[in-house]
Amino acid sequence: MVIKEGDFILLVHRGNKWIIKAEKNKIFHTHRGFIDMNNIIGKEYGTIIKSSSGYDFYIFYPLMRDFIMQFKRKTQIIYPKDIAIIVLYADIRPGKIIVEGGTGTGALTVALASLVSPTGKVYSYDINIENLMYAKRNIEKLGLDHVVEFKVGDLTKHINEHNVDVVVLDIPMPWLAVPVIRNILKPSGVFVSFSPTIEQVIQTVNALENNRFSEIECHECIMRQLRVRSGMTRPFHRQIVHTGYIVLARSLAM
Amino acid sequence: MVIKEGDFILLVHRGNKWIIKAEKNKIFHTHRGFIDMNNIIGKEYGTIIKSSSGYDFYIFYPLMRDFIMQFKRKTQIIYPKDIAIIVLYADIRPGKIIVEGGTGTGALTVALASLVSPTGKVYSYDINIENLMYAKRNIEKLGLDHVVEFKVGDLTKHINEHNVDVVVLDIPMPWLAVPVIRNILKPSGVFVSFSPTIEQVIQTVNALENNRFSEIECHECIMRQLRVRSGMTRPFHRQIVHTGYIVLARSLAM
Amino acid sequence: MVIKEGDFILLVHRGNKWIIKAEKNKIFHTHRGFIDMNNIIGKEYGTIIKSSSGYDFYIFYPLMRDFIMQFKRKTQIIYPKDIAIIVLYADIRPGKIIVEGGTGTGALTVALASLVSPTGKVYSYDINIENLMYAKRNIEKLGLDHVVEFKVGDLTKHINEHNVDVVVLDIPMPWLAVPVIRNILKPSGVFVSFSPTIEQVIQTVNALENNRFSEIECHECIMRQLRVRSGMTRPFHRQIVHTGYIVLARSLAM
Amino acid sequence: MVIKEGDFILLVHRGNKWIIKAEKNKIFHTHRGFIDMNNIIGKEYGTIIKSSSGYDFYIFYPLMRDFIMQFKRKTQIIYPKDIAIIVLYADIRPGKIIVEGGTGTGALTVALASLVSPTGKVYSYDINIENLMYAKRNIEKLGLDHVVEFKVGDLTKHINEHNVDVVVLDIPMPWLAVPVIRNILKPSGVFVSFSPTIEQVIQTVNALENNRFSEIECHECIMRQLRVRSGMTRPFHRQIVHTGYIVLARSLAM
Repeated sequence: MVIKEGDFILLVHRGNKWIIKAEKNKIFHTHRGFIDMNNIIGKEYGTIIKSSSGYDFYIFYPLMRDFIMQFKRKTQIIYPKDIAIIVLYADIRPGKIIVEGGTGTGALTVALASLVSPTGKVYSYDINIENLMYAKRNIEKLGLDHVVEFKVGDLTKHINEHNVDVVVLDIPMPWLAVPVIRNILKPSGVFVSFSPTIEQVIQTVNALENNRFSEIECHECIMRQLRVRSGMTRPFHRQIVHTGYIVLARSLAM
Repeated sequence: MVIKEGDFILLVHRGNKWIIKAEKNKIFHTHRGFIDMNNIIGKEYGTIIKSSSGYDFYIFYPLMRDFIMQFKRKTQIIYPKDIAIIVLYADIRPGKIIVEGGTGTGALTVALASLVSPTGKVYSYDINIENLMYAKRNIEKLGLDHVVEFKVGDLTKHINEHNVDVVVLDIPMPWLAVPVIRNILKPSGVFVSFSPTIEQVIQTVNALENNRFSEIECHECIMRQLRVRSGMTRPFHRQIVHTGYIVLARSLAM
Repeated sequence: MVIKEGDFILLVHRGNKWIIKAEKNKIFHTHRGFIDMNNIIGKEYGTIIKSSSGYDFYIFYPLMRDFIMQFKRKTQIIYPKDIAIIVLYADIRPGKIIVEGGTGTGALTVALASLVSPTGKVYSYDINIENLMYAKRNIEKLGLDHVVEFKVGDLTKHINEHNVDVVVLDIPMPWLAVPVIRNILKPSGVFVSFSPTIEQVIQTVNALENNRFSEIECHECIMRQLRVRSGMTRPFHRQIVHTGYIVLARSLAM
Repeated sequence: MVIKEGDFILLVHRGNKWIIKAEKNKIFHTHRGFIDMNNIIGKEYGTIIKSSSGYDFYIFYPLMRDFIMQFKRKTQIIYPKDIAIIVLYADIRPGKIIVEGGTGTGALTVALASLVSPTGKVYSYDINIENLMYAKRNIEKLGLDHVVEFKVGDLTKHINEHNVDVVVLDIPMPWLAVPVIRNILKPSGVFVSFSPTIEQVIQTVNALENNRFSEIECHECIMRQLRVRSGMTRPFHRQIVHTGYIVLARSLAM
């Protein structure tokens, strides 16, 4: 597979990663010298190139996980590990109809859109127009814009869609959205909400219990990364140990 | 959404779960009385019904995660949490070409097939024909048989496919397969392997380092489930704390 | 070191453990045959003996941790791991004056008494006389009765002691005891409380903040046990993942 | 309790901690102004004082845990959590005879000495004289020098003591010391070793199995600290997740 003009590439140097577009006559500057894009176009993915200062840079095509990690604009992002659990546990698959709120940086939107495409649909709500615009640009980059409809609105007040398969929340007060979701989620459909704090979880579970939801569960996903090196194998010393809790439930028929 | 004859339903009673097929004039027996299938067909998903002994049973449509948990025939199954991390980190998405080995119960095959469909393909290898037949039946149940090609064979010896996007391993000696995979994985493609023990991880990482793989990582996914109940919220006392390690790598161009 | 009549011994058979007293002409029955105590007296600790059915039983002198694990009468016991953190973080050392509440089975009392002896003192409160009697017997077995004073009483209402170094709580509503403890804890003294649920922690921390405590911390201690076996090393599959939270604080001068 | 000249005090300012000696006519400089020691002597512990720049500084008497955390000279220190588990699981109590190797910074030595005093003894081996001198000064500060004998020597080669209750190791190749320890540990005595990597654990367990040790266990202690704040309670985002593994065993009679 050869890198063409306009392709996104993942540039890696000793654990540092950048996603950039392969454009003719462009220079990419790093702390370890610059890289001439003309030298990249036409090369195969998986190639190692030298920066102007002689350092090795690895070129891969970016994975969804790489894109997600580039979306961090804010302290509070949703990590690939949590996205992984959410999409599998909530049964996000080709053809599904999803309501998402809030859009945030669009990290989760990208994963949802990618996995329901080409026949499914994601309706992504946010009250902040800047968030929506930022996310829209990210979705367009990945060619997934036909799968996502971005909507300015507060889904704790109103959701236009009906009979949706899954509702995915990453908002400060998910419990406020539960009565609205109750009415637009298909019977037996999946509710999933991501929250950093335990008080949010307690309130959300309470709202679910009062709104005919069942199979209510709360999970925390903790990843431990190991350094595997001959004779020195061990988990890394400091790691991220908490990002948030994932609350899941299924709606009962009325 | 109404339950039709032939549909799979998930029956839930106090944490016990069964996936069964809705068939006319059939009776399903449980330790809490039997359920007459004729009473289920025509009902809406999300309904609560009574068993012959008067106990409440909840009826949902099964999610992929529910199917996966039904595949346990052996002590060593791969859990939804690990499947979740594998599919997201390995970038399993519609259209991808995957080689899987070994097929095992087909739990992971189901997830892979479901997420690459309709345009992708999974080539699933196992040396054990019984495993392949068991997995094939599971895949057929889910209507995903056009996406999967089951192959009797030892992928530490030979793989027929070329230029595949991702290779996913859950075999006892994954390091033996690395030189073969080296030749059939697309440059910049993803290698992912699941192993219960640390010695397997060490040998696999060693083989990857000797076969032009890069971005080698090893992760463990630990889920903690919380009991959320007013005034009594806490993680459950005993839980599964270890299933296996996930090794990831990307292939370099030759 | 030779086993004498009246000594406590720890009997181990394939992970099963019993603490028994070496008494002449006594028989100890197990599911793997009986053991004649006359054969044990006079033997060295660390010896392996045969039961009447020919199974190997290992004889050790019991450690504090072994005694603690024998105290389980109830579902909710405090585990050695939590006792370990409590005693080190609360600076339990020879000579310290401690107030403990509630006594419970006396598992924590044994550790406290053992570590403050011979010059320190533990005042252990419980509202349940049966608990106190059970714990008293355990303390006497270990020859620590001169270090502990058991007191029937509700330490959320009143504590007789003054100027104590450390207060250790394992009671259902620790926050109720905070104002009382405020007055009897030496300035700069240590408050430590063990609670299974997060709501207990939140209320306790709130009470501490309102009663001139500082350096308030909350920790959870999670132990992972590994099976180390050549080529098959891994953490055990299922383990205890949560027992409780440890809240620590230091009192400010008035 | 009033602060006297020569006392050690723990100074705390927003999570920063220093242990200093209260000395007349001395000034302690911080990034938030200086503190005149004359203002501290005669004050009660638990008092809040102002620095020259008007910031609040809290004054406590230091706990053993505070001393331990001050001993960090090197990247690889042993943390209070691991010391806690080691001392409780190895049954370190007043009167015990302990062999320790290596001394390192003396953090573990302080805990051992403190808990076996006044009647027990710690023989602490290190091949590095600088380590021993540094540790000796720390032990003297705490008035525990009569309990500890520091010894220059390699305990993988020879140990002078006999019939010791517990051997505690924190050395790079603990498995080399196992045959020596076999001969000087009392039957039924406790072996405990702390190692950062899994390969060290595997080799140590192997040596124990070949030298008549029994009840071999390997534990990892993971602490999770929670931020408890009204409506915002959650584990801290990044924490230390791995320091090392603790291997325990008991010696059998010959």
